[in-house]
Amino acid sequence: MRLQKYRKTMYTSLQQECYEANMQLPKLGLVLFTFGNVSAVDRDKAVFAIKPSGVPYELLKPEDIVIMDYDAKVVAGRMRPSSDTKTHALLYKTWDDIGGITHTHSTYAVAWAQAGMDIPIFGTTHADHTHQDIPCAPVLSDEMIQGDYEYETGNQIFGVFDARKLSHKEMEMVLLQNHGPFTWGKTAEKSVYNAAVLEEVARMAYLTLQINPQTPRIKDTLRMKHFERKHGKNAYYGQGC
Amino acid sequence: MRLQKYRKTMYTSLQQECYEANMQLPKLGLVLFTFGNVSAVDRDKAVFAIKPSGVPYELLKPEDIVIMDYDAKVVAGRMRPSSDTKTHALLYKTWDDIGGITHTHSTYAVAWAQAGMDIPIFGTTHADHTHQDIPCAPVLSDEMIQGDYEYETGNQIFGVFDARKLSHKEMEMVLLQNHGPFTWGKTAEKSVYNAAVLEEVARMAYLTLQINPQTPRIKDTLRMKHFERKHGKNAYYGQGC
Amino acid sequence: MRLQKYRKTMYTSLQQECYEANMQLPKLGLVLFTFGNVSAVDRDKAVFAIKPSGVPYELLKPEDIVIMDYDAKVVAGRMRPSSDTKTHALLYKTWDDIGGITHTHSTYAVAWAQAGMDIPIFGTTHADHTHQDIPCAPVLSDEMIQGDYEYETGNQIFGVFDARKLSHKEMEMVLLQNHGPFTWGKTAEKSVYNAAVLEEVARMAYLTLQINPQTPRIKDTLRMKHFERKHGKNAYYGQGC
Amino acid sequence: MRLQKYRKTMYTSLQQECYEANMQLPKLGLVLFTFGNVSAVDRDKAVFAIKPSGVPYELLKPEDIVIMDYDAKVVAGRMRPSSDTKTHALLYKTWDDIGGITHTHSTYAVAWAQAGMDIPIFGTTHADHTHQDIPCAPVLSDEMIQGDYEYETGNQIFGVFDARKLSHKEMEMVLLQNHGPFTWGKTAEKSVYNAAVLEEVARMAYLTLQINPQTPRIKDTLRMKHFERKHGKNAYYGQGC
Repeated sequence: MRLQKYRKTMYTSLQQECYEANMQLPKLGLVLFTFGNVSAVDRDKAVFAIKPSGVPYELLKPEDIVIMDYDAKVVAGRMRPSSDTKTHALLYKTWDDIGGITHTHSTYAVAWAQAGMDIPIFGTTHADHTHQDIPCAPVLSDEMIQGDYEYETGNQIFGVFDARKLSHKEMEMVLLQNHGPFTWGKTAEKSVYNAAVLEEVARMAYLTLQINPQTPRIKDTLRMKHFERKHGKNAYYGQGC
Repeated sequence: MRLQKYRKTMYTSLQQECYEANMQLPKLGLVLFTFGNVSAVDRDKAVFAIKPSGVPYELLKPEDIVIMDYDAKVVAGRMRPSSDTKTHALLYKTWDDIGGITHTHSTYAVAWAQAGMDIPIFGTTHADHTHQDIPCAPVLSDEMIQGDYEYETGNQIFGVFDARKLSHKEMEMVLLQNHGPFTWGKTAEKSVYNAAVLEEVARMAYLTLQINPQTPRIKDTLRMKHFERKHGKNAYYGQGC
Repeated sequence: MRLQKYRKTMYTSLQQECYEANMQLPKLGLVLFTFGNVSAVDRDKAVFAIKPSGVPYELLKPEDIVIMDYDAKVVAGRMRPSSDTKTHALLYKTWDDIGGITHTHSTYAVAWAQAGMDIPIFGTTHADHTHQDIPCAPVLSDEMIQGDYEYETGNQIFGVFDARKLSHKEMEMVLLQNHGPFTWGKTAEKSVYNAAVLEEVARMAYLTLQINPQTPRIKDTLRMKHFERKHGKNAYYGQGC
Repeated sequence: MRLQKYRKTMYTSLQQECYEANMQLPKLGLVLFTFGNVSAVDRDKAVFAIKPSGVPYELLKPEDIVIMDYDAKVVAGRMRPSSDTKTHALLYKTWDDIGGITHTHSTYAVAWAQAGMDIPIFGTTHADHTHQDIPCAPVLSDEMIQGDYEYETGNQIFGVFDARKLSHKEMEMVLLQNHGPFTWGKTAEKSVYNAAVLEEVARMAYLTLQINPQTPRIKDTLRMKHFERKHGKNAYYGQGC
C-alpha cells in the first residue's frame, strides 16, 4: 500500500499533463463522445500516460489516466488503457524524441483518410506547419489486421514515412486509410495542437478542391519560405522561446 | 385523485429518464425547434414514456412526458404524445429487447434519407458501431401513407431489416427515405448516442464522396476487426462494465 | 411632450414584441452583424414596429424600435427604420392577415437565392411546413431597381406568388434572386421561426443534391400527409392550442 | 526609466484599441490559435500598433502590443511583432487614409485564395460592401519571395489594385494566392468587420457555385443600387452617423 502511494505521487504530474491535453480535444471540437485519446511520455522514467478506454470526457479525472511502459504493459492505474495504446507505445519506443501523441476521429481528417488520399499542400496555413503533403498510410494487410492490429498500425506509419523518406520531426501528422489521424510533437499539448491544425488544413484543402478541382500545389519557394520562417535556423515567427 | 397521485409516482423515474434523454438532443445539436423525440420503455410495466408533441425543449418538464402502452394508447399524462408515437410503439412491441428510441431530423442523416441512399461503410468510425451500410428504407407505398401512416412507418423499418437480413442488435439505426433517421438501443440514452453517431457518420461519408466519388468500402477484415474489438466476445474497448 | 409620453406607452408592447423577435436572429445564427430585420404589426392601430437601420444587435434596445404606418411613414421613434421598411409595409398592406415579417441574409437561403433557383421539396422537414417548392422570385427589372426599389421588392414577391398561384398562408417564405429570404407568419415570432426553418431546409436540399444530383422530389401522398397532419383540418401535431 | 513610463502612457490607448480589435478575431470565429493579426494606426504620431508574433489570444494583454513606425522599426514594446508586420507597414505608408488592417487565415477566404480565384459578386450581401469581385492577387514571384517577402506582399497587393484600377476605399479586402486575406478600413475595428464580411461572402459564393456552377454575376443595376444605398452620396442605410 505504501508502494502504491509512492507510485501515485511519482506519476501525478504526468497524469495531470496527459489529462489536461485530453481535455483540450472536446474544447477544440476534435472529438464526439470518446472518439480520441492523447498520451504523454516521461522519458526519464520510460513510461507514458494515456487516457483510459471509453471514458467520457466529462467524467474523466486525472487519477484515471493509466501509466504504461513502451511495451504497452500497465505500470500503474486501475482502468483499462485506450484500445489504441500499442500504437502509442511503438511510436514512443521508435521515435525517442517525441513527447506526446494524439489520435482523433476529427471529421475532415477522417474524410481524407476514408477517401484514401494524401492531403495536398495548397497554401501557407499548411506550409507554416510542414512542407510536404500530409501522407495517408495505406490500409493494413489482412495479416496485420488479424495479427497484432494496434501494434501493426504503428508499423504502417513507419512504412509510409520510410517509403517517402519523411522526417517525423518535420511531418508531425499522418492519416491511416479508412481510419483517421495520428499526430505527435515535443509535448502532449503540441500533439493536440497538431491535431487541430491537421483538421483545419484538411478542411481548407477539401474546400479548395471543391472550388477548383484543378488547383495546383503551392510553389516551392513559398512553401519553403513559410516553413523556414517558422521552423528554420533563422526563424522569426513567435517569441523565440 | 389518489389514483392519479399513485400513477404519478409510479412513472416518475421513467418520465425523468425520458426527459433527460430528450434534453440531450438540443445539447448535441441534433434538433432544430421540436424536430425530434426520444422515448424510454419500462418492460416490467409494459409502457413507454415519450415526449409530448410540439413542445419546445426549453419549456419541456419531466411531468409533461406522456406514458403509453405498446398499442399507442395513453396510459398517463395530460398532453398529446409525439405524432410519431405509433412508430415507437410498434418497434417496442416487436423488438422486445430494446429500451429506448430516438427520432430526429438531423441535417446530414436527413440529406442521405432525402437522396434515398444507404450510407456506405467507409471507415472505422462507422465500423466501431455497426459492420454494414446503414440502410435507407424505401418510401412507403401510397396505401401505407394514406392508411395508418406512423404505424406503417414501423412496418417499413421491419421490411428493410428483413429484406437485408439485418439484426436490430447489430444495426441500431435506419433512415426512412424522404424523411429521416430512427435509432434505438438498450436505453433511451444509448438511442440518443446512436443518433449522434449516425449524424457524424453521415457527415463523414458525405465528405468522403465529395473528395473521392470512387471511394470503395472499407475492407472486410478491418470492418470486422473494429466491430469485434468493441462488440465481439473478446471485446477490449471500454471498461467492460 | 405629454403626447410623446402617451405615444411611448401606446407602442411599448409592440416595440417589445418586435425587439424580442429581432433578438432571436443572432441567437438562431441567422445574422452576421446587422444583416437582418424583423417587424411586428398591430392591426388595430394599423402600424408596424421595425428594427432601426444598421444598429448592432448587442446595442439594440426596445425603445429604439421604430413605429411605421402601412405607407412606410414614421409614426413614432427617433431612429431611421430598416432600409427594407417599404417591403415590409407593402406586405402588411396587401396581406392583411399576417402579423410579422423577417428578412435575413442567412447563408444557405442566400446561396439558393444567388443561384437563382427554387428550393425543391425533397422531404418531410420541408413538407411539415409547406407543401410546395420554395419559390425564388426573379431579379427585379432595371426599372424597378432604379425606381422605388424596396417597394418594388414587395411587388416582385406578389408577382411570383400570382404566377405560381401560391397562397401566402400555405407558403410563408420566399427567396429574392441575388438577394435573400423574406418570411412571414401570424406573429413576428412565427416569422422568425419560419426564417430558421427555411435556412435548415435550404441546407438539407443543398446537401441532398450534393449526394445525389438526380434526387426526385418527395412523392405527393407523403408531401400532403405531412403538411396535413400539421396544418390540415384534422391536424394531430402539437398540443392543438 | 521615466522615458519608458512616458512612452507607455503615450501609446496606451492605441494599444488598447489594437488589443480589443485583435480579441474580436477568436470571438468571430476567424482564427485558429494564433493564425491572424490586427493593427491600428495613429496618424498623428505616425506609428501603428500590432499584435506580437505567436502569442495565443487567451494570453494576450494590451501591454504586449508592439508599436512600430511605417518602416517597420520597433518604436516601443518588448515583444517581437507579428511576422507580417512589414506588409502592414507598407500599406499604412502608401494608403494614408486607412486606420486599421486585419490579416487572418479564415477558412473560406483561404479556400478561394488557395484555389487562386477572385470571389465573383453574386448577390447583395457582397454588393452592400463592395461593388466588384474580390480580387485574388497572384502568387509572388520567386524573387519577391526570396527577397523581402512580407514587404513584397504589400507590393503584390498594390499590383493587383493597379492592374484592375481598383480603389482601396471601395474595395477594402484582398486575397493573396496560396495564402489568405488582408482587409482594412477607417479603424482597426472596421478592418475586423471587413474580415468577417469577407469570410461570409466567400462562404456564400462557394455554396452558390456548388448549387449552380453556371451562376452569372449579379446584374449591374442591383449591384450598384445596394452599394450606393449604403456608401453613395444619398446613402440611406444606417443612422447616418
